[in-house]
Amino acid sequence: MIPEPTIKRLCSLFHLLDDLEKEGLTCCTSRELESISGIPAYTIRKDLSLLGGSGPRIKSRSAGYEISSLKEILTEALGFGELKNACIVGLGKMGQVLLQYSGFIPDEFRLVAGFDSDVNTLELLRSEIPLYPSYEITDRVKEKKIELAIISVPLSAAQLTADRLIKGGIKGIVNFTAARIQHPEDVFVRNLYVIEEFRFLSSQLYLKEDTPKE
Amino acid sequence: MIPEPTIKRLCSLFHLLDDLEKEGLTCCTSRELESISGIPAYTIRKDLSLLGGSGPRIKSRSAGYEISSLKEILTEALGFGELKNACIVGLGKMGQVLLQYSGFIPDEFRLVAGFDSDVNTLELLRSEIPLYPSYEITDRVKEKKIELAIISVPLSAAQLTADRLIKGGIKGIVNFTAARIQHPEDVFVRNLYVIEEFRFLSSQLYLKEDTPKE
Repeated sequence: MIPEPTIKRLCSLFHLLDDLEKEGLTCCTSRELESISGIPAYTIRKDLSLLGGSGPRIKSRSAGYEISSLKEILTEALGFGELKNACIVGLGKMGQVLLQYSGFIPDEFRLVAGFDSDVNTLELLRSEIPLYPSYEITDRVKEKKIELAIISVPLSAAQLTADRLIKGGIKGIVNFTAARIQHPEDVFVRNLYVIEEFRFLSSQLYLKEDTPKE
Repeated sequence: MIPEPTIKRLCSLFHLLDDLEKEGLTCCTSRELESISGIPAYTIRKDLSLLGGSGPRIKSRSAGYEISSLKEILTEALGFGELKNACIVGLGKMGQVLLQYSGFIPDEFRLVAGFDSDVNTLELLRSEIPLYPSYEITDRVKEKKIELAIISVPLSAAQLTADRLIKGGIKGIVNFTAARIQHPEDVFVRNLYVIEEFRFLSSQLYLKEDTPKE
């Protein structure tokens, strides 16, 4: 098994390689990757060596790694190649933005449903993605084989939403609410506290100004 | 000085209180806050006790804290009350979404400028917020007294963008790119790796399926 911190770093590395490739690069050394990502070159080489079986294929040449083949190896090892069905629950301000941004990782996630408990919202929203009332979550998740869900509902609805998703067989949840979601061990949950990051930065600025200067 | 982990928790607490208030609640106990946020009630009480001077005002009654006054105290202590000017650099897919979502914390941040290096993008985008070419960043940040910037540019432009912002006197940066940004100690940087969070979840699902069942 690949340890979790390694998986995290390899996800960053993939993101980086993807960006470098978009910018027209074909090769890069672990030193170059270090200078952009902050991950030590030694750690990058060690992480890559853990991708069992692919070892010989990712041997770095003097010119560095070939970006496209390294991406391929990571795609295979981490399962990015498998297109997963996803949905968004909660089509308020944040949810609508996410709905529009649905093509963010087109090769890896396919947004197949949006849910909201407010029928007016569902009627007013124009979307290429089919929208449903929230009480249909469990059935639709089963029917459409949805594996990943994004939750951006009001706080009080977060757990109920998660329960409906889990009952439908959801495998992973990205939680944009402030609620801590109770979930079985085999359902993965990641919390993305976007607004809190802004507030944290804001308070750092404020408290710094507050520090008495000597 | 309030320790950093406490500031983080207080930011979460503020988010939570804000949501609870929107849902019509006026009072809540630290136990109730614990059950929603996962932060132990004891830690919540201890964190609040660190807000020097405000001590007696936040004494919990048997009915719990009064949400509106607790929010006020946090606003004052963490400086949320101060409206800060913000800008977005990089108006690609992600940047455009952020531009539309600009009203996300209306009482705390005011988006006053958007920047992109591509003149076509600037001409095509319709926005209520004034848009400028990226080479004007330093001057505009000074002129408009912008304190916070969101960076969502291509990887190769991240450091140049940060340098321009810092030269203009920016105080905080929220970085949506995969790049690690070099910055002076008195400029705060928060990294928000949204896409990486999704990929990490995706690889967890994949690797779990991969685990041999015994």
